[in-house]
Amino acid sequence: MEGQMEIGVVVEAVHKVEPPPLQTTLDKLKVRLKETFFPDDPFRRFKGQPSKRKWLLTFQYLFPVLVWAPNYSLSLFKSDLIAGLTIASLAIPQGISYAKLANLPPIIGLYTSFVPPLVYAVLGSSRDLAVGPVSIASLIMGSMLRQVVNPNTDPYLFLQLAFTATFFAGLFQASLGILRLGFIIDFLSKATLVGFMAGAAIIVSLQQLRNLLGIVHFTKKMGVVPVTSSVFHNTNEWSWQTVVMGICFLAFLLLARHVSMRRPKLFWVSVGAPLASVIISTLVVFLFKAQNHGISIIGKLKCGLNRPSWDKLLFDSTFLGTTMKTGLVTGIISLTEGIASGRTFASLRGYQVDGNKEMMAIGLMNIVGSCTSCYVSTGAFSRSAVNHNAGCKTAMSNVVMAMTVMVTLLFLMPLFAYTPNVVLGAIIIAAVIGLIDVPAALHIWKLDKVDFLVCLSSFLGVIFISVQEGLAIAVALSIFRILLQTTRPKVIALGNIMGTNIYRDLHQYKEAKKVPGFLILAIEAPINFSNTTYLKERITRWIEEENTMEDKETGLKFLILDLSAVPTVDTSGISFLIDLKKTTEKYGLQLIFVNPMGEVMEKLQRANKIDNFLGVDSLFLTIGEAVFSLSSSFTKGTA
Amino acid sequence: MEGQMEIGVVVEAVHKVEPPPLQTTLDKLKVRLKETFFPDDPFRRFKGQPSKRKWLLTFQYLFPVLVWAPNYSLSLFKSDLIAGLTIASLAIPQGISYAKLANLPPIIGLYTSFVPPLVYAVLGSSRDLAVGPVSIASLIMGSMLRQVVNPNTDPYLFLQLAFTATFFAGLFQASLGILRLGFIIDFLSKATLVGFMAGAAIIVSLQQLRNLLGIVHFTKKMGVVPVTSSVFHNTNEWSWQTVVMGICFLAFLLLARHVSMRRPKLFWVSVGAPLASVIISTLVVFLFKAQNHGISIIGKLKCGLNRPSWDKLLFDSTFLGTTMKTGLVTGIISLTEGIASGRTFASLRGYQVDGNKEMMAIGLMNIVGSCTSCYVSTGAFSRSAVNHNAGCKTAMSNVVMAMTVMVTLLFLMPLFAYTPNVVLGAIIIAAVIGLIDVPAALHIWKLDKVDFLVCLSSFLGVIFISVQEGLAIAVALSIFRILLQTTRPKVIALGNIMGTNIYRDLHQYKEAKKVPGFLILAIEAPINFSNTTYLKERITRWIEEENTMEDKETGLKFLILDLSAVPTVDTSGISFLIDLKKTTEKYGLQLIFVNPMGEVMEKLQRANKIDNFLGVDSLFLTIGEAVFSLSSSFTKGTA
Repeated sequence: MEGQMEIGVVVEAVHKVEPPPLQTTLDKLKVRLKETFFPDDPFRRFKGQPSKRKWLLTFQYLFPVLVWAPNYSLSLFKSDLIAGLTIASLAIPQGISYAKLANLPPIIGLYTSFVPPLVYAVLGSSRDLAVGPVSIASLIMGSMLRQVVNPNTDPYLFLQLAFTATFFAGLFQASLGILRLGFIIDFLSKATLVGFMAGAAIIVSLQQLRNLLGIVHFTKKMGVVPVTSSVFHNTNEWSWQTVVMGICFLAFLLLARHVSMRRPKLFWVSVGAPLASVIISTLVVFLFKAQNHGISIIGKLKCGLNRPSWDKLLFDSTFLGTTMKTGLVTGIISLTEGIASGRTFASLRGYQVDGNKEMMAIGLMNIVGSCTSCYVSTGAFSRSAVNHNAGCKTAMSNVVMAMTVMVTLLFLMPLFAYTPNVVLGAIIIAAVIGLIDVPAALHIWKLDKVDFLVCLSSFLGVIFISVQEGLAIAVALSIFRILLQTTRPKVIALGNIMGTNIYRDLHQYKEAKKVPGFLILAIEAPINFSNTTYLKERITRWIEEENTMEDKETGLKFLILDLSAVPTVDTSGISFLIDLKKTTEKYGLQLIFVNPMGEVMEKLQRANKIDNFLGVDSLFLTIGEAVFSLSSSFTKGTA
Repeated sequence: MEGQMEIGVVVEAVHKVEPPPLQTTLDKLKVRLKETFFPDDPFRRFKGQPSKRKWLLTFQYLFPVLVWAPNYSLSLFKSDLIAGLTIASLAIPQGISYAKLANLPPIIGLYTSFVPPLVYAVLGSSRDLAVGPVSIASLIMGSMLRQVVNPNTDPYLFLQLAFTATFFAGLFQASLGILRLGFIIDFLSKATLVGFMAGAAIIVSLQQLRNLLGIVHFTKKMGVVPVTSSVFHNTNEWSWQTVVMGICFLAFLLLARHVSMRRPKLFWVSVGAPLASVIISTLVVFLFKAQNHGISIIGKLKCGLNRPSWDKLLFDSTFLGTTMKTGLVTGIISLTEGIASGRTFASLRGYQVDGNKEMMAIGLMNIVGSCTSCYVSTGAFSRSAVNHNAGCKTAMSNVVMAMTVMVTLLFLMPLFAYTPNVVLGAIIIAAVIGLIDVPAALHIWKLDKVDFLVCLSSFLGVIFISVQEGLAIAVALSIFRILLQTTRPKVIALGNIMGTNIYRDLHQYKEAKKVPGFLILAIEAPINFSNTTYLKERITRWIEEENTMEDKETGLKFLILDLSAVPTVDTSGISFLIDLKKTTEKYGLQLIFVNPMGEVMEKLQRANKIDNFLGVDSLFLTIGEAVFSLSSSFTKGTA
């Protein structure tokens, strides 16, 4: 027994590895499907309820407004009124600006701040989300559609395509929700988004130089290079009046932003600044007749609410590919922003947002929007933050905002005729600059270099190639990383921590010591077709290295594979294990499997029925028991 | 202590979780790159050798012929001579047949059995591989190129495209080897290949009905539906003489195959059958002048060796896309067959084949081939098996085969003028029927249903859509499965096995019992952006379920996360863990991490420096120690 104690094995009973209880393939399939599509178990609260209550719950599930409306009170309304008016003061100038970013008439931006918030108030489950057009989705839609139709020469067709793309975006979003495929947006990781947002912000800002400098002829392309060259090749078009006005208002907006960031209580300063800019600049233009001095203005706008636009949806095969692609990209981007914003504020207040249900709400909102002269909208992060800070209590704040926008649409539109485009450019720049999140990028760099690479490639891809391709590169890299983790799984050599029966990574723990005669390896990934070749090469190399290092007298006798971290194994994996058994025999080693998990154990047993490769003493529940049992039998054998 | 013993905790010292020793980012990158690209450590044998020896080893590495040629002996040559002649007798009829399958002149098939084997003999490291054209790659090349050029109306252009595609296939294969990206072919799993091969065999066989029935006007398409309809819509073209001849020879070939399968010692029966069929049928046609009675024959063939064809390579932009795509698909398919065959016979004989080096050899062989009037070639599985059975010892058997083909090319070509096409069809069908591996499909069905789905979709995709798309669907499914395993990772609830400090799956082990007050979960996947949302929802649901089930008096106090099976964590994963800490606090639980692996531990520490979320008692080396330490402090607290 002396020898045993040295390698730290505590004497204990040897336990058998059990297969999991028998389940039919159908049962397994059911469990698998449930875990894949219904991990949050949305039907849980329906269980054991009377059928009347079930109907109520179903309606409440479909229309979350039924949850909060019955208990709505005047005091709640007071809070929502203030929050609603606050976000309206932001939504009106942003709506006009973002529509211009998408190459659409400014009024479409206001339409989009009217109908979708009303729809969301009925269907959405977030209490903080402020709905309307957003900068990134506007930018993407504008640039993707501009590749096939020129918005200046053919504005009507462009508008049709924008509505159609919005329809597809909504359809795609709602389908994701209904099919419970919401996890697709998870593939846009934080790192991807940080890089993407920063890149998009730079592109948007550069493009706004057009308005800020008063350039008339500007490139249609999106990259940094063509835009910058466009800026400096048209210096003769620069108008000093526009430049002065632009710099003044940009400085004002950035200062307001700075003040609010320093003192969170003064958040209303940055909220009010855009509307103030619009009012002041419009007055300045009106009083000094600046439109005659090189400052371009929005021009006449008609009063009136959204007109129906379902007759404008264009399913013509010439443009179908473009509108579907645009819908897909803007749909997924705006969904990501909407869901992420909803989840952030829900977790701040401690309530739950059901991702799949939100997708249905946002999708339906865009489908309705596309039929009522709106382009793609979602919950904007910055505006939701304002909504939250202004003390909103329910989705009613969206209704208040929509009503304010309605009043504007009905009566105040003529006032915007003299609003200069340069101020809209300044508002956009000031809004998107907040998307460049340097601290987040630094945080990623500190924690994970590969994630930073993803972030960087998404950033560089967006600014040098295109918005869609930058995103695609980053997503491909992220997926490639996951595949690589399976294709090149970690294999760890374990050693015994003296005086215990704990086995841990030899590299990580200095106290862990090799057990003479044993090579103990833990595989940290599913064993499947993509890694069996690697595992074979790697383990063979390990055996050979150990054989040269190992003391010739004792020699390597056992290879223990710890399968605790192998969740699944496929047919290639089983073939690999059988193959490994033969290889180890060639080296004169005995192969032992430790702690195979349910599914792995089941497949080992099934394969054993066919090939009969599991010998006596080839399965143990713990490494400690395996080492104890085998080394004692080994000592007996040689004694 | 009584309470402790009940839940089976053996008293032992509490160990600290250690971070791995410090490493610079560069060192980590080095290790990562080595594991990704050089898992077999090919430079191992260069270590500590004198520089002269290093040069020799380098040359031997590049030209494996230098390893075996110096020790080559007459007795080895005798074995290789027999094996070489045996495979030549198979290679000649198959070469002619497969070239027809690729819509190329029959002589190209013989050219391809002459130059590539010689190149492989110098560069290849397998001793058993018999090199030449193969059925599947021929089929794919023929069908992909036929989509842009009609081989009957424009044979010269078609030939140019075939050589160019071969060039790209070789370039692609060699690049994979040089860039050590060989693991890409691992993504064609066994299941994918079983389905793919069976589907391709059916397509090939159906297409050969054209030759077997003597139909002149035949569809250009590949699917089962158009081919079958083409067969039955041209019944007026069926020629009874051809049909009779075809059935006779097909029966003869299948019988020979059957005999050889029953009695492995009689393997030469099936090997000799194709050549015998060619000779007999040619004689029959010649003697009875059957070409005048509706039997189509090959026609006149010129004598002579391969002519240079580098001037025929066509890098014209009109066809560049097609030739590159064809090169890529045939390249990867033929590479898979070549490497798999090489590995199979190497493991039978107990030597190693370096995958990346083989790729370079096969790639270079195809590049040389494309310049010497050869189309794509690789190591064929069936012919290699014959080579192996015939007792080959080295790659010299390929040289013997090439010499035999050379003699044929120089002197015997006129003899093939009267060979009927129907016999070539019969030879192809008899050869590809062996690719339908029903027992393998059944084996996959028994072991793994998802793998069987992959196999089936690859089969159905090939026969109903197209060869390339069938393959693409199967690969996409396989990759999707890997992604799903990470996106929806297994989370297992653990319980204590009475009387020990072992914790195992509650579902799998009936002896495992819940520890009151503890929820112990093991996550079995890397924690990253793709699964944090899922993990959060799933774990929250678990806590809620436990809270309702748990005895109200004791209540749930601790959530233990066993991180033993979490190899890596990214920035989203770290955010998730910090977030989970907050969530558990809301439920009044303490969160404990057990056994984080090296990289995970490192990142937890780094994140802790920023966010300071790891409290006292939140890290333990084993679950047993955590439960022991926490439940004793808890008991003390309430006592």
